[in-house]
Amino acid sequence: MISFKNDYSEGAHPRILEALLKSNLIQEQGYGEDSFCLGASELLRERLGNKDLTIHYLTGGTQANLVAISAFLRPHEAAIAAQTGHIFVHETGAIEATGHKVLTSESKDGKLTPAQIQEVLTAHTDEHMVKPKLVYISNTTEVGTVYSKSELQALSQFCREKNLYLFMDGARLGSALCSEGNDLDLADLPKLVDAFYIGGTKNGALLGEALVLCNEALKPDFRYHMKQKGALLAKGRVIGLQFLELFRDNLYFDLAIHANTMAYKLRDELKEAGVKFLAESSSNQVFPIFSDAIVEQLKVNYHFEIWGKVGTQTAIRLVTSWATREEAVDSFMADLKKIL
Amino acid sequence: MISFKNDYSEGAHPRILEALLKSNLIQEQGYGEDSFCLGASELLRERLGNKDLTIHYLTGGTQANLVAISAFLRPHEAAIAAQTGHIFVHETGAIEATGHKVLTSESKDGKLTPAQIQEVLTAHTDEHMVKPKLVYISNTTEVGTVYSKSELQALSQFCREKNLYLFMDGARLGSALCSEGNDLDLADLPKLVDAFYIGGTKNGALLGEALVLCNEALKPDFRYHMKQKGALLAKGRVIGLQFLELFRDNLYFDLAIHANTMAYKLRDELKEAGVKFLAESSSNQVFPIFSDAIVEQLKVNYHFEIWGKVGTQTAIRLVTSWATREEAVDSFMADLKKIL
Amino acid sequence: MISFKNDYSEGAHPRILEALLKSNLIQEQGYGEDSFCLGASELLRERLGNKDLTIHYLTGGTQANLVAISAFLRPHEAAIAAQTGHIFVHETGAIEATGHKVLTSESKDGKLTPAQIQEVLTAHTDEHMVKPKLVYISNTTEVGTVYSKSELQALSQFCREKNLYLFMDGARLGSALCSEGNDLDLADLPKLVDAFYIGGTKNGALLGEALVLCNEALKPDFRYHMKQKGALLAKGRVIGLQFLELFRDNLYFDLAIHANTMAYKLRDELKEAGVKFLAESSSNQVFPIFSDAIVEQLKVNYHFEIWGKVGTQTAIRLVTSWATREEAVDSFMADLKKIL
Amino acid sequence: MISFKNDYSEGAHPRILEALLKSNLIQEQGYGEDSFCLGASELLRERLGNKDLTIHYLTGGTQANLVAISAFLRPHEAAIAAQTGHIFVHETGAIEATGHKVLTSESKDGKLTPAQIQEVLTAHTDEHMVKPKLVYISNTTEVGTVYSKSELQALSQFCREKNLYLFMDGARLGSALCSEGNDLDLADLPKLVDAFYIGGTKNGALLGEALVLCNEALKPDFRYHMKQKGALLAKGRVIGLQFLELFRDNLYFDLAIHANTMAYKLRDELKEAGVKFLAESSSNQVFPIFSDAIVEQLKVNYHFEIWGKVGTQTAIRLVTSWATREEAVDSFMADLKKIL
Repeated sequence: MISFKNDYSEGAHPRILEALLKSNLIQEQGYGEDSFCLGASELLRERLGNKDLTIHYLTGGTQANLVAISAFLRPHEAAIAAQTGHIFVHETGAIEATGHKVLTSESKDGKLTPAQIQEVLTAHTDEHMVKPKLVYISNTTEVGTVYSKSELQALSQFCREKNLYLFMDGARLGSALCSEGNDLDLADLPKLVDAFYIGGTKNGALLGEALVLCNEALKPDFRYHMKQKGALLAKGRVIGLQFLELFRDNLYFDLAIHANTMAYKLRDELKEAGVKFLAESSSNQVFPIFSDAIVEQLKVNYHFEIWGKVGTQTAIRLVTSWATREEAVDSFMADLKKIL
Repeated sequence: MISFKNDYSEGAHPRILEALLKSNLIQEQGYGEDSFCLGASELLRERLGNKDLTIHYLTGGTQANLVAISAFLRPHEAAIAAQTGHIFVHETGAIEATGHKVLTSESKDGKLTPAQIQEVLTAHTDEHMVKPKLVYISNTTEVGTVYSKSELQALSQFCREKNLYLFMDGARLGSALCSEGNDLDLADLPKLVDAFYIGGTKNGALLGEALVLCNEALKPDFRYHMKQKGALLAKGRVIGLQFLELFRDNLYFDLAIHANTMAYKLRDELKEAGVKFLAESSSNQVFPIFSDAIVEQLKVNYHFEIWGKVGTQTAIRLVTSWATREEAVDSFMADLKKIL
Repeated sequence: MISFKNDYSEGAHPRILEALLKSNLIQEQGYGEDSFCLGASELLRERLGNKDLTIHYLTGGTQANLVAISAFLRPHEAAIAAQTGHIFVHETGAIEATGHKVLTSESKDGKLTPAQIQEVLTAHTDEHMVKPKLVYISNTTEVGTVYSKSELQALSQFCREKNLYLFMDGARLGSALCSEGNDLDLADLPKLVDAFYIGGTKNGALLGEALVLCNEALKPDFRYHMKQKGALLAKGRVIGLQFLELFRDNLYFDLAIHANTMAYKLRDELKEAGVKFLAESSSNQVFPIFSDAIVEQLKVNYHFEIWGKVGTQTAIRLVTSWATREEAVDSFMADLKKIL
Repeated sequence: MISFKNDYSEGAHPRILEALLKSNLIQEQGYGEDSFCLGASELLRERLGNKDLTIHYLTGGTQANLVAISAFLRPHEAAIAAQTGHIFVHETGAIEATGHKVLTSESKDGKLTPAQIQEVLTAHTDEHMVKPKLVYISNTTEVGTVYSKSELQALSQFCREKNLYLFMDGARLGSALCSEGNDLDLADLPKLVDAFYIGGTKNGALLGEALVLCNEALKPDFRYHMKQKGALLAKGRVIGLQFLELFRDNLYFDLAIHANTMAYKLRDELKEAGVKFLAESSSNQVFPIFSDAIVEQLKVNYHFEIWGKVGTQTAIRLVTSWATREEAVDSFMADLKKIL
């Protein structure tokens, strides 16, 4: 069996395991106050071009989302997300469990625009409704699309005018920033959003997301929130060290480029074979549409997610990662061609 | 500098890193449904002598406590803990953040007795007060003491009679079960408590606690609660694999025995040197009392926690672990003797 | 100025104030354990034809909804409502503030059907999403429609099959049960829903809703939840006494009939005048559509809610109540005819 | 039977019912935006000597406490209360249900001092513990004592220095300000505390507490919090009108003076009869200690609360109110003297 189910089917990039081995017996402070976390934050601040950023390390995306959003909002304030947004659909109501409503806007491409946000604002006029306060976006989105620099600038400006926080879920930020459609630099982000995270779990780390707080108003007491939500890892070093390794050179982006390259190969060969897609993804997720019969046959040798019905057919999701071998893609295409 | 600050100052036992390396490129299911988690659970059920136990893997103690307790209780129900209980003091109100009050009983040795719990029950009589429903105990306790089998049996019987859940925080369960004062077997626990966890973080793992659900009533839908609280690790394999390694043979207990042995050595040599203690610990935490001047001098070469004032003197906490070298203890004692 | 803004613009029906006066100096137990609450519950159980019902008195609809729903659900469970549902739109995220997501289904008439609920169930398949557990319906709905007996029976049967609680918001239950389209009896409700409330605030009481718990599973410890949410009124007698008066004879329904009659008069005369409506209401809310110019002119002498844009025109909401005078309706129609 | 059980055993002062009757059919805005609420707030601002105060009307004490405290605090922040504090003991964990821990200090007289608060601050040093942010005091306290002006000034100054909010529960504020030991004026409060409420329920109103927000930082969006917690009464006029009546002249204080006078009569005659007290109350609560046999005999004709064991004896609580008749006190004393 070969898995295209997600980008966390393997362990970590070998260099990360080597770094763990090498540092294993060094005694360090607990709870993210170790020299690896401090070093990774120093390095990331350099790469992000801003010495004032506060950076925290969390174990996963849902945790990062819920700790951040619940720390940022007062009880009556709500987040706005695309209807495909991870926090709205796939986090078991984690945001609501901290007391906050998630308002949504329909979005075909998984992205939000100022016009969509304005509609939500217009509908929320008084104290009988929640007060929209934070805009949640994902880059890449849940359907594999990416934000262009001008799109993000427009959102950023709009949010500042409307006194809304702009928060970017970067679980797949590596893939986004290495996407063929991307014109954003990592260092653009602190200028445009109030907070975001750099996903490690889905880009070669064993686990870990680096949450970057840009807006001064969001920084005070953040470690209290992490601890309260069970998100302050005793051996925080385990995450800090991985980001240190990923950003020591270009490793983080090299891994994303490989994942995207494998996805493009899949996409392009599928397109050539006449396959249609659910969404125009330019990142490491591909959403081809097949008849149910073909899907059943593909299941014999491949793991993947069933994404949903499209008329009488079925869209599936194929995800590539830093660990996807070119042979896996070739094998998938060869098997598919026999079936088509 | 040598650290006796806690039992999570180093990485993981080398065998755990080897297991990570060896399994690294195997493709697995996400979210704890991988073969390592499944295998570890199978193994633990055998070691625990009960095929019906449900086992989940979490990243740390506070997370395990808050996910479990908030899943077990209805909104008006409360936990009872010793006033030294970790959930009451050192988790930034994590339980309250899920909506539940923590009721306490004063306890000199960090343990709870049926009589103490009865006092709390007696004081809570109607709907103007919360309803006590869960008893939280730690083994070892936060002051290093352990529960004997008869003490735990008494608690267990009392809780069943009173319709209270009995939940054991086992962040340091290894040290407890290997303590000189212990007469409990691992396999006794599922018979006596409704849920407990086996701490990995403080006994040789990189991270991870194995939460064991014994009472059928507590099992349904538990993974929903984990996901909602940000506690369902994408690469759950990272934790499962460590427990598989720790319990494949006697490694888990060997590590705890080493930690305890180092603590006893410290304790006995301190006692011999005439030092007094804050609490009679029989596990991997030692609480000697020194003058402030001595504490200041010890700080030069050693990391440790200041535990609190005792009259004009100061109690410190020295913690040993699987990684504590005998030379570290010798060095500490030698330095101390120069000062005394 | 004449107000058609809502059905809580006046105080209470005179008989209620008389009852308050008459009972004023009688000493009673606090917190709803007084003889008036007990008597009202006895009376309601008779009227509802079920001696086992548990009845609690709350001060308003949002409070009744949030106390009930948060008491009924475990943390990962969600409510399903129509997209127009009061709990989804107009309660400032009160349900989410207790930790629960509200899932919705689009509905043109404000009602839910088994097919709509099934769609939500189908979309929620595993622990990465909340677990739908309670169906929230309003009767009358927020757009003035009512459930027929067969519609409610179908919902009831479906919910039982799917192990979902069926909860009816009866803030305007009087108007619903006296609607021209209604074929439900008050005594049908305990057989068909798991819990519901009988609205007093919008049908002649100073304040108060009578929450009826039908399903045994929902009864235990309910007063704890009320107290915890600040909903256990010290002088509970104030609400109990009003329900005693409203249900001593047919007063509750007489008041609703009057409100509906006034609404029908409005509706029929508007229809006759060629006015179109946003929704086919058969209760005490009417939603006529006017040009913006007409709306502005109506505002001079009348209070009402602006409901929303319909193309280039505007729908307004006119609400009648037990206190609406026929002259008010005549005056409105006369003024409108001058403008049209 | 005569009740000394509490100060909410009767309905409302007759003048309040008259005011309800008189205003009954006037059409008003809903949700506390009616002319009675606006008028009452205007009047209270005058009486409080501060035109910038924001005033909201809630239905009861627990509701006022939970809405206010949850609106004021960020998730990791905690309240500090005396161990007898109503929010700690008798509100079914209402504050914890909004996510906040209540820290306590032992207090023999139900009051807090700067020194006691400092102890709590000293114990809370880092992000592993909650962050104390609000000091909750009650006046009168739960044991009937009152704060002197100098005591409140000391608390106020201390809280400002330490950046803590000072919040006063005034469920029995009338009795406090009319107590023989009192030297505070109503108009002193806005200068000394950040928020407080003026209790109506226990001083002659049918229901209602007037929450006064003094600190600018606590005012924004408060109505959202009220609505979200089910505390925005549709017919808010019912509460506004009562405060308008209570403060139109000296009625509020006249009622409190009567309650206190009746309590002093009880206290003094009990003292004369050689009875001992649990606490030195100078307000409308008296805590005499009797043998269990006497308590049993008193129960035959009188309702009262059993407060707790004092050695082998029992303290009971006798509460007087605006409605307590002098004959009731005489009757109690006469019956007691027969028993003693």
